[in-house]
Parts: sequence; C-alpha cells; structure tokens
Amino acid sequence: MAPTDKNLSVVTTGKDDLLLEDREVPQPGPNEVQVAMQRVGICGSDVHFKKHGGIGEYMVKKPMILGHESSGTVSAVGPGVQNLKVGDRVAIEPGVPCRKCKFCKNGRYNLCPDCFFLSCPPYDGSLRRYHCHAADFCYKLPDHVSLDEGALMEPLSVAIHACRRAELTLGDKVLVLGAGPIGLVTLLTAKAMGASEVAITDIQQERLDVAKKLGASSCFKIDPSLNPEEMAEKMHAILGWRSDITIECSGAESSFQTGIYATEPGGVFQMIGHGNPIKSFPQFVANTREIDIRGTQRYANTYPTALSMIANKLVELSH
Amino acid sequence: MAPTDKNLSVVTTGKDDLLLEDREVPQPGPNEVQVAMQRVGICGSDVHFKKHGGIGEYMVKKPMILGHESSGTVSAVGPGVQNLKVGDRVAIEPGVPCRKCKFCKNGRYNLCPDCFFLSCPPYDGSLRRYHCHAADFCYKLPDHVSLDEGALMEPLSVAIHACRRAELTLGDKVLVLGAGPIGLVTLLTAKAMGASEVAITDIQQERLDVAKKLGASSCFKIDPSLNPEEMAEKMHAILGWRSDITIECSGAESSFQTGIYATEPGGVFQMIGHGNPIKSFPQFVANTREIDIRGTQRYANTYPTALSMIANKLVELSH
Amino acid sequence: MAPTDKNLSVVTTGKDDLLLEDREVPQPGPNEVQVAMQRVGICGSDVHFKKHGGIGEYMVKKPMILGHESSGTVSAVGPGVQNLKVGDRVAIEPGVPCRKCKFCKNGRYNLCPDCFFLSCPPYDGSLRRYHCHAADFCYKLPDHVSLDEGALMEPLSVAIHACRRAELTLGDKVLVLGAGPIGLVTLLTAKAMGASEVAITDIQQERLDVAKKLGASSCFKIDPSLNPEEMAEKMHAILGWRSDITIECSGAESSFQTGIYATEPGGVFQMIGHGNPIKSFPQFVANTREIDIRGTQRYANTYPTALSMIANKLVELSH
Amino acid sequence: MAPTDKNLSVVTTGKDDLLLEDREVPQPGPNEVQVAMQRVGICGSDVHFKKHGGIGEYMVKKPMILGHESSGTVSAVGPGVQNLKVGDRVAIEPGVPCRKCKFCKNGRYNLCPDCFFLSCPPYDGSLRRYHCHAADFCYKLPDHVSLDEGALMEPLSVAIHACRRAELTLGDKVLVLGAGPIGLVTLLTAKAMGASEVAITDIQQERLDVAKKLGASSCFKIDPSLNPEEMAEKMHAILGWRSDITIECSGAESSFQTGIYATEPGGVFQMIGHGNPIKSFPQFVANTREIDIRGTQRYANTYPTALSMIANKLVELSH
Repeated sequence: MAPTDKNLSVVTTGKDDLLLEDREVPQPGPNEVQVAMQRVGICGSDVHFKKHGGIGEYMVKKPMILGHESSGTVSAVGPGVQNLKVGDRVAIEPGVPCRKCKFCKNGRYNLCPDCFFLSCPPYDGSLRRYHCHAADFCYKLPDHVSLDEGALMEPLSVAIHACRRAELTLGDKVLVLGAGPIGLVTLLTAKAMGASEVAITDIQQERLDVAKKLGASSCFKIDPSLNPEEMAEKMHAILGWRSDITIECSGAESSFQTGIYATEPGGVFQMIGHGNPIKSFPQFVANTREIDIRGTQRYANTYPTALSMIANKLVELSH
Repeated sequence: MAPTDKNLSVVTTGKDDLLLEDREVPQPGPNEVQVAMQRVGICGSDVHFKKHGGIGEYMVKKPMILGHESSGTVSAVGPGVQNLKVGDRVAIEPGVPCRKCKFCKNGRYNLCPDCFFLSCPPYDGSLRRYHCHAADFCYKLPDHVSLDEGALMEPLSVAIHACRRAELTLGDKVLVLGAGPIGLVTLLTAKAMGASEVAITDIQQERLDVAKKLGASSCFKIDPSLNPEEMAEKMHAILGWRSDITIECSGAESSFQTGIYATEPGGVFQMIGHGNPIKSFPQFVANTREIDIRGTQRYANTYPTALSMIANKLVELSH
Repeated sequence: MAPTDKNLSVVTTGKDDLLLEDREVPQPGPNEVQVAMQRVGICGSDVHFKKHGGIGEYMVKKPMILGHESSGTVSAVGPGVQNLKVGDRVAIEPGVPCRKCKFCKNGRYNLCPDCFFLSCPPYDGSLRRYHCHAADFCYKLPDHVSLDEGALMEPLSVAIHACRRAELTLGDKVLVLGAGPIGLVTLLTAKAMGASEVAITDIQQERLDVAKKLGASSCFKIDPSLNPEEMAEKMHAILGWRSDITIECSGAESSFQTGIYATEPGGVFQMIGHGNPIKSFPQFVANTREIDIRGTQRYANTYPTALSMIANKLVELSH
Repeated sequence: MAPTDKNLSVVTTGKDDLLLEDREVPQPGPNEVQVAMQRVGICGSDVHFKKHGGIGEYMVKKPMILGHESSGTVSAVGPGVQNLKVGDRVAIEPGVPCRKCKFCKNGRYNLCPDCFFLSCPPYDGSLRRYHCHAADFCYKLPDHVSLDEGALMEPLSVAIHACRRAELTLGDKVLVLGAGPIGLVTLLTAKAMGASEVAITDIQQERLDVAKKLGASSCFKIDPSLNPEEMAEKMHAILGWRSDITIECSGAESSFQTGIYATEPGGVFQMIGHGNPIKSFPQFVANTREIDIRGTQRYANTYPTALSMIANKLVELSH
C-alpha cells in the first residue's frame, strides 16, 4: 500500500449503516507513530455499535470510525519515539489511558476513567488507512509473527486478562461457558497456563466441535429443558468434578447461574460476558462455597504476554 | 460450679421450643478436653434454629443442644493433650474439620464438607454444663482476657475472616452495610486493620448511634424512598468517595445492590449476610468496574488473631 | 516568603561542601506546577551525597541541589493542570517515572529505570525557593494537615511501601531492626496496619527509649558480645515468639543475619537498609523455614495512603 | 510379589553402609493403609544419609530404612479408610504432618515441626516390602499412570512447590540454575505453567543436552573463568532478557549469586538447593531491584496437581 494523502475510513452513525469516508491523514505527535493499517478484525462490539448505536453508556453520537483489533506497519514516527521506526510491523493495543490517575499508577490502567479506546464512542477506531497511536502501545512483531496474529492479540488479551484475574494455574479444572471467539481463546489460554482439564459449554454444536479440535477435554451442549442448577449437576455427574475456575463468556443469565452452581467451593467465577445488565444469581451458594465472582474490564499489561505466547508457540491462533 | 455428673443442656426440637435436658457428661477422648462451660452467647442462628427449625440445608431433625459462641474452664483432659491442663480458661472454636480433605490441607478448613460445628444440625451445641472438644481448637485465655471476651471471639472471627478475605489494608475506605452485631465487629476489625474511613448503614438509627460511638466515620440511615442506585449515589455525594472495600452484613437484597453501586472500580464487595438465597445484582456495573464479589463461610485460622487482638487491646469488646 | 525572581538553592558538589546558589526560577510546563518550597527535610542520603559524593551507582558529577522530603505552596500552574490551583498547599512525591515502560504500566513505577528523582544524581533536589513538579505527583494537603507532616510523608512512604511489600496484616508479630527515623515510622505504620506486637532493636538506648514512647511492645539493645544467632535466640526466649514479619532498617550485616534467625517459618524478612552491598546470610535457615526475603526500592502508590493516614490520625508524626 | 510375613528392608546406620534387614510387617492403624512397595527411587538425600550420616540437623542416630520416592499396591486397609481398597495402586506422599499446629491449619503443612517424613531421621523410609501410611497421603493412580510415574511424583512435587512459591505464570521468562534431576523437572513444570522461555545452566554439558531435549529454550555451560556478575551479564547479552523467575536448584554459592544478578527488577529468586548453609549474596542489587528471595521446604498440596499433570499429559516423565 503506497503512501497517500487519502485516509479512507469505515464509519457508522449507529443507525445500522456503514459509510466509506475520506478523512485527513493524521500526523504523529510527540511519542506517537503513524501506522498504515493492514489488518483490522471486526469485533462483536463493532457490529453492535453499527446496529444498535451503543453499548451500555457508550453511545454513538457522531459518525465514528469502527475497528480496534488491528495491526499494521509504521509509516511515520513522531518526536521522541525510540522503540519503533518506519517499516516496523506492529500490533496496536487499542486503549491508551491517561497515565496520571491512581489506576494508571497502580497497574490497573484498564480502569482509567479517561482512557482513549479505539472505536469506543466518542473515539474513532482503526478501520482506516492511517491511524496515529501512542508508540508505547504499539508492539513490534518479530518476523515470524504474522499481521493476522498481531490483530488477534486483542481478543487473546481479553482471555489472558480474565485467566490472570482468575489466578488460573497448574492443575486447575476449568469450565468455560460459551464457545464463541472469546470462549475459544480462553480455552487456549487456560491450557497454556496449565489447566489440567477444560470443559466448555455452548448452545451450538458446531462451536463445540471447534472447541473439541482446539483441545477442550469435555464439551457440553446446553440442554434447554434443564434449569441452571440441573445443568450444573448433570455436568458434575459426568465430569466427576466441579470447576476450580469458571469463566463466563456468553453473557447469558442462565449461563451465569449454571456457572455458579458448577463451581467448586473456594473456586473463582470469572465474568467476561455482559448481556443483561441486571442478573439474578444463587448468592447463598456463592457465599457458603466462598466463590469469588470477579469482573473483567478489557485488559492491562497483556500485550507483551500475548506476543510472547504467539512468538513462542504457546498458543496457535492460525487454525 | 462444682463437678457433677449432671449435664444440664438447652435443647430445641426446632418447633419454637426450648427444653432443659439432663444429658450424659461426656468424657474426653484422645486429644480432647472436657470444658465446664461458663459463657455461651446466643447467636442469630441459634434463634433461627429454635424458631424455624433450620437454615438453608441445615435442618433440625432431632432434639439439638444450642450454642456455639462459648468459653469455659478445662475440667478434664484426654490422652495426648499437651497444650492445656485442668483449670485453664479457654475460648472454643466451634468448628472442628475432618483434617484429611483437600480443604483441611490447603488452609481453608472452613470449607471442609465434613466439619463438626457446634449447634449446626446434626451436631449438638455447647449450651450445657460440659462439652468435650478437640484440644487444638480450644485457646487458652491469658489472665487479663475475660470469659466474656473469650465467647466474643466467635463473632469477631467472622469479621476477621471477612476482612481478610477482602484483603482490607492500610488506608482503605470501607463501607459496612448493616450495623447489627456482625456489622459492628466488622467496623472494629476494619479500623484495627488500618481502614482510614469506615462508613456504615442501617435502617435503625439506634444501631447507627452505637456504630458512631464505636468509631464509624460516617453513618447512613437507609432511605426507603431511594432505590439502591440512588442510595449509593447519595452516599457518594456526601462522602466524596466510593468504597475500596464494601462488606455486606445484612443479607438484604437491596443492601447487596446498594453495595455494588457504592464500590469503587477495582474494589472488593465482601459478602457475609445471607437473606434471600437468590439475589439480583447489577452485573454490568460489577463487571466493568472489576469488582470482586467474595463469599465467606464462617472462618478459618482466626482464633489466634482474635485472641491476639483482644489481649493486645487492638479491639475493645467490652463496651 | 514573597514572590521573587531569585531561586536560592542549596547545592553540593559531593566534596563535603554546601553552596548557596541563585538559580533560574523554573516555569511550569504542561501538567506541571511551580511550588514555592516551604519545608525540605534533610535525609541521610542528602548527607551522604554531600559527604561522600555518591551512593552505589549514583554519583554526584556536577553541582546538585539537595533535598527530596518536601512540601510547599503552589505558586503557578502549567497548561492542563486540573487537580491544583495557586495557593494550594502540597506534599511532593519526589520520583516522577517515565509513564511508558512496563514498570510504569504494571503498578511498580518505583522500578522505572528512567525515573526522575529529586536530589538523586543527575537530578536536582527541592531544597530551593521554587521547584516545578508534575502536578499529579503533588498532593493537596487538607487544612488540618501541616506542611511539616507533608514533608514527613516521604519517610512515611518508605515505611508504608515496606510494610505492604511484607504483606503485614492484623495480628502479626513484627520485629523492626534499627530504631532510626525509618525504623520508627515503620513501627508506627506496622501498628496502624494491625500488628499485635512490635519489637524493635538498636545499638543506642536513646533511640529505643523513643521507640518505647511510640508504642514498641519490646525493645532490645543489641548485645555486641552475642553473635546474630545468639541474639535472635535471646529475643526468642524473652518474647516467646519469632516474628511473622521482620523489617531490617539498619543496613548492618549482623542485623540482617539476626533478623533471618529471628523470623518464624513462613514469615517475611523485609529489607529496607542498604549498608554493605554484599552480605552473607544463613541461607539454609531461610530456605528450610520458607522465609521470603524481599527488597524495597523507594515506594509507589504510597502518598495517597500516607496522606490518608495523617489526615485521619492513624499515625501521629508530630511527636 | 506374593504376600509374606517377611518385610525385607534396606537400612543404613549412616556409616556408608547398606544392610538388608528383615523387619516386622506393620499392620495398618486407623485411617492407614498397608502398601506393598513396588517402586522406590533413590534420592540424593538417601545417598547423603548413607554416606555422611546426616543432613543439617537431621542425623542418623540409629539404623534407618531408606527411601521416600515411592509407589506400590494397597495390601491391607485399616479402620476408617474410605478412599482406598486392597489392590489399588498408589503414589505415597512421604510427609505426614501433625494436623494440629498452625501450619497444618493454614495450608503450609510442610512447615509443621512435627512432620513424619519417610527416610528423614528419626523416621524409617519406604525401601522395604511393606509400609503403613496415612491413607489420605496415598493417591490412587489411574490405570494409565504407571508406578514409575507414581514414584516420580515426589521430585515433581518439589518442582511444583517451587514454581508455585515463585508464582510462575503465563509468559514468564525463567532461568533454572542447575540441570540435575530437580532442575529438569523444574524446567518441565515451568513450561507446563506457561513460561514463554526457560534458560538453564549447568557445569556439565551432558546435563544441558538432556535439558535441551526436554525443551529448554537456551542452555548455558557455566564458565569458571567468569565471576557470578560476569556470568549473569553474559547470559543477559545473549538472551536479551533478565529472568522474571529464577530457580536455583544447585545449591552452589556462585550459582546463587549469578541468579540474583540475572534476575529482572521485580522478579523472584526461588531457592531450592541447599549447599553451603551460609552464603553471601549481592544484597544491594536484590534490594534495589526488589527481588523476592523465597525459600522452599519440601512441598504441600502438590500430589493432586502432580497426578493431574501426569494423567493429563501436561508433563511427560518417561523420557
């Protein structure tokens, strides 16, 4: 892709439309690089902003460029940049926090209330020809790591962050609820961290078939005739174990409930999925089993780990 | 109280009755001591067993002796006992686990599925003249610690366990929901652990008045005209902070919900109270704020700490 | 002190000299404030730089302004500053890290290799009339907190960081080695975090007398006729306990060794003091007792806690 | 091996002798099983007891049966045993703690001062025909796990415990010092836990060749002409990284020192090896880099994990 002063961009107004607009080519400021975008994945949230115009409190109020799972090639460097040079292939971590609040200082910058995040209103995304980004949130890809893999570091980061928050470790028996894209990278990440068994659920058999190929030790098609407690009991009876770590990737309330019932005393129930903002859950069970129910908001400090996993073949994303 | 072969005991059948029965005086087995009981508190759970015949899955199916917040004097020692002798004043930790399961081995013996626990069906309590107990779960009281304080080590243990699970530490801003007995010992414990501020809520002003005297930095009477989110916003506006650690001691669903809304991103919501076994909660808020919702089941490894707190005046329970 | 364009500064060349120089008055850049300095403590390191010209790898190679324990009044604000205004009284956290490296992102910014730090070569200190500093590393003091206390937040931060690294918590038995300024604030901090007992050692009785007044539960004058193991055994015999947490504030090798011997199995030995860069220690004992020996490099995320402790009277520094 | 009332045992008096003695066949007490031994590994400590008559404070004062890395078949069960039956193939965890002290209760039973441990004076080992052991410290092997693997769960436990203590996790860069048996299982365990790179050192090339085959990403033959700091610098220059986790398996003082210099700021230096009981180390470096130096004493709660790793092929021990 030759340099150009055009910056073709994919834009939505949130009314189920997609527009191609030609924006200004941005020039990198201090400590920024300009990236010629080469891979931009379409995340469920992008689709949601296009179709429904918002997620929770994040509303599309003006035309917004989509895209945040992305990689490309550095096409210009701003003043002060030392870690990158023109021609470097990079993966882009989409969120750049304020660097000054208590969350930025205590290591949980994903909780920064003033975080710039690609394709999250009011911020534009990276589905365009050129995007300028903080250089320290761009990660140089070694030659043997592909741009596809670079873009996939974003969903992988979601899984890494969740598995870390869950303190998943060697020998853990893990249950992943939902075998969509996030469920599948969570499965792969759990195995890379030493899970001895990973069971996975879904309502679609095709997804479970993929999960099986990726190494799930047990797959459960959700039986709609069973209530969450019964579904959990059924899995317990078949598996012979309750999960040390349960990771909820579907957002469905019934899945949430099933997951609590399925978790071993002293275990962790890690939330990723959203769905219905208010959910009911078996609090007596969670309390007396001392289950920890933990939230995840995006990720922090995951890109170096994701790159290391890919570069060292701890995870194989090009299936 | 002179030795006697009578063992007068307070018994319930779970049908809102209280009987005085004369039981056999038990003799201490290996590694057990016989304790002449001197203080036995009446816990809410004792009242519940008497009135309603059960809590959750624990049902009074045969006449059961009440009482588990207790202290007394060692009146006989069984074979092998080395830590205690006749005449020692002791506090009794009511739960004696199996010592063999994975929970007993990994330090979370409160999750042992085969735990003996005083006045929890099918096990008798200590509201009787003599009770035999595992010697290593009886803690010798120094001379300057009273038997009253010994009995109060049980509710204090609930608070210690919850504050530890919450990882409460120096400078934390804490919100305690519910100013009943457990709420109050939680307040005292939070302050002993270095909380810089402890706000507390209740529906009764008298309880809040006590909390104020015990050192609460702010007291909030729950306003029934506000929904949980509004109540949380009101407190936020007045306090100027959301809580790093929220500890729910009431069991009320509305309190549970208020607590989630009131918790700072990255904070901990620690459950103690039970109430309605199924509860709804703002899961989107908990998830995106990365709030950890943690259960507590009784306590483990708290009695030495409780004794140390009392003996060294870190907490003053004789108000 | 009226505004002036003079910026009188206390400078050393590292050759045991102190000069008064008139420097330029610096103007605040973006996100900076100019502070009219009012309190600057003299730390042991300042004296060391003056007398010996360096500490470890930090060498005074050009005339350097001293001072890093400081507070003052905001006299000008740079562009973008929102948290402070002219006239605010502030405590200054002396280290401002790069905000871009992995340590700055993972919450351990004290390990940032490119950290600006007052009066640590090659950086000037704050012992001058005016100093410009990153606004987010200046902390507004409430009216009832004095400028003296603001300056003392620096040594208090050292103690907070060490006690946090040691995971000191409720009921811990603590041994502090060395009753100099850092030992004393460590004693106060340990008590604020819930230590049930704090023993302290020193070679000077006067220091121990101060420690006693500040609440040490036991004081030990080091007996030079005993080797470290004997000294530890003597303390064990008198106290009846080994320490859960040992904090070494003296830097002396013998003190280091005594501390390892004095630590309970499973305990933490927290290093603060430096002294001889190479030290021998009883590794077999540390290993088989599973003692964790942990380093401290300055502090991170401590100033808000320090301010909260002072403002809420968890610690009393104006003795 | 047919049942017999003979109990042939391999005994040492600690004077570099090995005797075959015929001991009584022990009968299982309550909660014990009698195991017909089938595999007993010879550990370095067994050789040490035979040759030198002791390790540290553990002295062979009377003839002692050797062996503690062992597996066999249950040949009789005592009263109360529920988890095992005659004919079950089991791996034996050699240490049975007192179950009553604070360490047994807080999850660190390896620190129990009254722990029975096979072939550690004054306790006999399992290198005999029949040995009786606490049933809950015997782990039933699935059909597809061999008795060889059962015996190897002991050294594997050492590695698991060390890697857990080091909090090794996904993406860590790991340095293992020493490529003997423990170094090699540590390498395998680190990889199973998600280490992205594992470098290993030794003084013998043959050992490094084995490590390479087992998956070490880099092997370093120790160069005796370099001092520890130089050796660490050399590795740093070649690898391009310092280690997040360093695990010392050799016990050599120079290796210990090299490991400290080679560790990244904020990293962990995990001790396993003993060697010289007093060691010198670069304390200034460890302190300013905030390196955690952690001890390991045997292991606790590792056998279920070890079995799970082997049964689920997370580690392959039959190379």
